[in-house]
Amino acid sequence: MAQQMGRQSLQFENPPWIISSGCIAGTKEGEGPIGHEIDLIGEDDNFGCDIWEEAESTLQKEALTLALGKAGLRADELRYLFAGDLLGQSMATSFGLQPFEIPLFGLYGACSTAGEALALAAMTVAAGYADVVGAVTSSHFASAEKQFRFPLEYANQRPLCTTWTVTGAGAFLLGRESGKKQNYSDNRKRTDAGSPMIKRAEQKIADDTEQKVCGVRITGITTGKIVDYGVRDSMNMGAAMAPAAADCIQAHLKDFSRSPSWYDKIITGDLGAVGREILLDLLAQKKIDIGSFHTDCGLEIFDNEVQGTGSGGSGCGCAAVTMCAHFLPMLRRGELKRILFVPTGALLSKISFNEGENIPGIAHAVVLEAAEN
Amino acid sequence: MAQQMGRQSLQFENPPWIISSGCIAGTKEGEGPIGHEIDLIGEDDNFGCDIWEEAESTLQKEALTLALGKAGLRADELRYLFAGDLLGQSMATSFGLQPFEIPLFGLYGACSTAGEALALAAMTVAAGYADVVGAVTSSHFASAEKQFRFPLEYANQRPLCTTWTVTGAGAFLLGRESGKKQNYSDNRKRTDAGSPMIKRAEQKIADDTEQKVCGVRITGITTGKIVDYGVRDSMNMGAAMAPAAADCIQAHLKDFSRSPSWYDKIITGDLGAVGREILLDLLAQKKIDIGSFHTDCGLEIFDNEVQGTGSGGSGCGCAAVTMCAHFLPMLRRGELKRILFVPTGALLSKISFNEGENIPGIAHAVVLEAAEN
Repeated sequence: MAQQMGRQSLQFENPPWIISSGCIAGTKEGEGPIGHEIDLIGEDDNFGCDIWEEAESTLQKEALTLALGKAGLRADELRYLFAGDLLGQSMATSFGLQPFEIPLFGLYGACSTAGEALALAAMTVAAGYADVVGAVTSSHFASAEKQFRFPLEYANQRPLCTTWTVTGAGAFLLGRESGKKQNYSDNRKRTDAGSPMIKRAEQKIADDTEQKVCGVRITGITTGKIVDYGVRDSMNMGAAMAPAAADCIQAHLKDFSRSPSWYDKIITGDLGAVGREILLDLLAQKKIDIGSFHTDCGLEIFDNEVQGTGSGGSGCGCAAVTMCAHFLPMLRRGELKRILFVPTGALLSKISFNEGENIPGIAHAVVLEAAEN
Repeated sequence: MAQQMGRQSLQFENPPWIISSGCIAGTKEGEGPIGHEIDLIGEDDNFGCDIWEEAESTLQKEALTLALGKAGLRADELRYLFAGDLLGQSMATSFGLQPFEIPLFGLYGACSTAGEALALAAMTVAAGYADVVGAVTSSHFASAEKQFRFPLEYANQRPLCTTWTVTGAGAFLLGRESGKKQNYSDNRKRTDAGSPMIKRAEQKIADDTEQKVCGVRITGITTGKIVDYGVRDSMNMGAAMAPAAADCIQAHLKDFSRSPSWYDKIITGDLGAVGREILLDLLAQKKIDIGSFHTDCGLEIFDNEVQGTGSGGSGCGCAAVTMCAHFLPMLRRGELKRILFVPTGALLSKISFNEGENIPGIAHAVVLEAAEN
């Protein structure tokens, strides 16, 4: 159960645990600053498939398989999945997660879906509706460019403010118990990642087990509203999403009566360098200074200077992979104690863009805290 | 809170109430068998807009405005919205619901979204996460044909097994209290439907108040899995969805240890005539006979013989409008006591279809019971 905080937040009385997570990404992500922390890197971005959308489905399947393997759980031990992606009619989710045969709540929050999924998963576990549930999201550079802008074959030039959609997926398993009792060496026998491209899964699972000093709990959430500042440039997603991130962070701090310094880090999903600057400006206008605590998954996953990724990484996969590979382990090792995770989404479709509509944004905040296991 | 029932169901200990609902539909729906029960019928299917997608956004806005007006609530009294539609990146929801500024969980379950939204809304209220929440879904014939098949201007011929996407939206407000105390004549003053095309809203609100003998509660839910029987014909949605409906209904009856006769009606979302036949066949193979209790919203909303609607109505709007206009009032008048509402969705996108993928299905069941107000 939970206490309603302010206008749009909940604080869980018995916070759910993140019992395991798994992530997989493409070659470019593998070459980036956190590449060595990602569970699996594909040998190429096809992931054994002929079609980009199929490749993205494979990402969802592999991420969930990894998370299950690490937790030593079978698919039928998950009661619900909360999942989504960026494609029209959530195609990667429908085809990637079908084989698991788990009751599914399909979600669409653009790149904020990782936050939406974690929020609903936490609400479901905290209410006692399920013992263990999963939250899965993905994006793929090639399927996203085809869906929202131009097919890669067109070789369109990109302005510097453009973000680079991350090819990757992250899966999180949430439970009422911390999962500490699980015997990882036994559990590894139950892992069936079922893919020929695994490079480091076994080693990662062993590493995760050793590193797991603390557990991680979701102690609260703030659910975002759609915010429309009139941005119409589909090449500048950071500007479209920053107002929603500012609205959500401001609402969160107010609802919980917290100052930014309560957190070790406030981590937005995929604003990139341009969106980050707008976010800090918008919050400064409200006399909120998060500058020294803020980072963005899109700035962590790529080195923009070296990798030519414009303003930074983006997509549902950006927030999910960076959280799973980089920040969750920092919480588990005790290097971070409290973080506010704010995946951000741009509510854009090819049709709405072609019809001259604005690009509204939405963001969902999730509080993650390290806890004694 | 709720009791976990079997593998995929919940029974609520303190079942949430449907405190009000509102629906709006197009001219063809207005001429159909339940047309006189629909709150608002547009003068044409543009609903004052130039673009089909904008028209669909207007449907969501009007349906929610009506539901708020009937309940005498302001938008800021709703804590969360659970909403979705059929369009890529849920465009009708993003643009239709933005003006209300209510924290939003965006959903995608194809035409099952009405069931998914009611389920998550009920879970949220039953857990005490909110006092009042809304569930909104829509579809529009013209935007759906353009999105999934051919633009209307192409004048494509349709096989008889095709369903006809309903132009309409339904909104449901769920609360912890029944809402009986609300003074409807006072509340009417707060209604602001904000549209020039209102024909019967005032009268409908007055009728609803008089008819309201019983309250309606959501006492349980069964969340569906993705089911893929290999159907690939985007002109035969009924066949694609029937296996998921059969799977969900079978799981529901097993989880709750109920026979079909426990219900006055088992109402699927939009299988149409073809899908209904397949559903009854599939369940008969499992020795489950729901024939005498079953109906389908797609068979209620149109008269296929007279209106040339092929196999029947379909779309998120089909289930939502038919429930709101036809079945909810029957529960409120005490003519039905218990119904199982099973919106059904075909997980199809233009891209997945063009790439030769199957059309998997999903269905979500919601138990609605009349209760003393």
